[in-house]
Amino acid sequence: MTKHETAITADAKVPTIEITREFDATPERVFRAHVDPELYAEWVGPRSSKIQITRWDVRTGGEWAFGDDEYRFFGSFHEVRPNERIVWTFTYEGEPDGVFLETLTFEPIEGGRTRLRVLSVSQDFETRDGMLASGMDVGVIEGYEKLDELLLSQEEA
Amino acid sequence: MTKHETAITADAKVPTIEITREFDATPERVFRAHVDPELYAEWVGPRSSKIQITRWDVRTGGEWAFGDDEYRFFGSFHEVRPNERIVWTFTYEGEPDGVFLETLTFEPIEGGRTRLRVLSVSQDFETRDGMLASGMDVGVIEGYEKLDELLLSQEEA
Repeated sequence: MTKHETAITADAKVPTIEITREFDATPERVFRAHVDPELYAEWVGPRSSKIQITRWDVRTGGEWAFGDDEYRFFGSFHEVRPNERIVWTFTYEGEPDGVFLETLTFEPIEGGRTRLRVLSVSQDFETRDGMLASGMDVGVIEGYEKLDELLLSQEEA
Repeated sequence: MTKHETAITADAKVPTIEITREFDATPERVFRAHVDPELYAEWVGPRSSKIQITRWDVRTGGEWAFGDDEYRFFGSFHEVRPNERIVWTFTYEGEPDGVFLETLTFEPIEGGRTRLRVLSVSQDFETRDGMLASGMDVGVIEGYEKLDELLLSQEEA
């Protein structure tokens, strides 16, 4: 199994966080693992965390909420464009004034694979830098490793 | 009737548009004019435009859509915090990849009046500058003049 690097970049000029990650599966399969709540709960977040999804109306205009015993998050699906793009809002309940707008794009690349790009923007550098300092990188990196494993197990099944 | 200036500011460093405007009414009344669909349709947009609201689920996690014969817009209510704050997403249907995250704050100021602040952020300067060049300022300025008139007519009624 190929090890893929997760790149997490903060822009110096714009209060964004950009994540890019490749997966050994088609955009359709990577997209499905983002919208099917059972699959999503299986991989999202750090390995130490057991995620429960409490709201999941995955359509343009729908809403979502999930979390574990300690941290809870909520937001809205601004747009769900099948197999291509998800735009959602994202807030950690503990900091209700910190809101991110996140755009996920699922780009097909050679070999039936996918390049996932997650671009998050907040309204100021303080909110963005707080997110970067929160340890979110562990959840992102470990989550994508779990997604690699999930995609592989689907092929073996 | 006092004439209030509408300030529309673009930040050089962050892809935001900030609008501030004072109103001669309490935050409760200005907020209500933003969430009651009949009131909102009465004042939002330029004088030349007749707005029809087609979706209006005004709650945290709800969705909205409105427009006139020519231009249509849609988005989600990320959070509705009564009389204080609305965070929503905003997209012009003609440019579906351009998404704004907008935070409206209703601040009480002396004399039972309100300072409204609207902070919009997009993910890049191109989207932000396109919005600024779209003529949105006419709709914002004329809309707030109509809102002044609506608030005054409520007092007279």
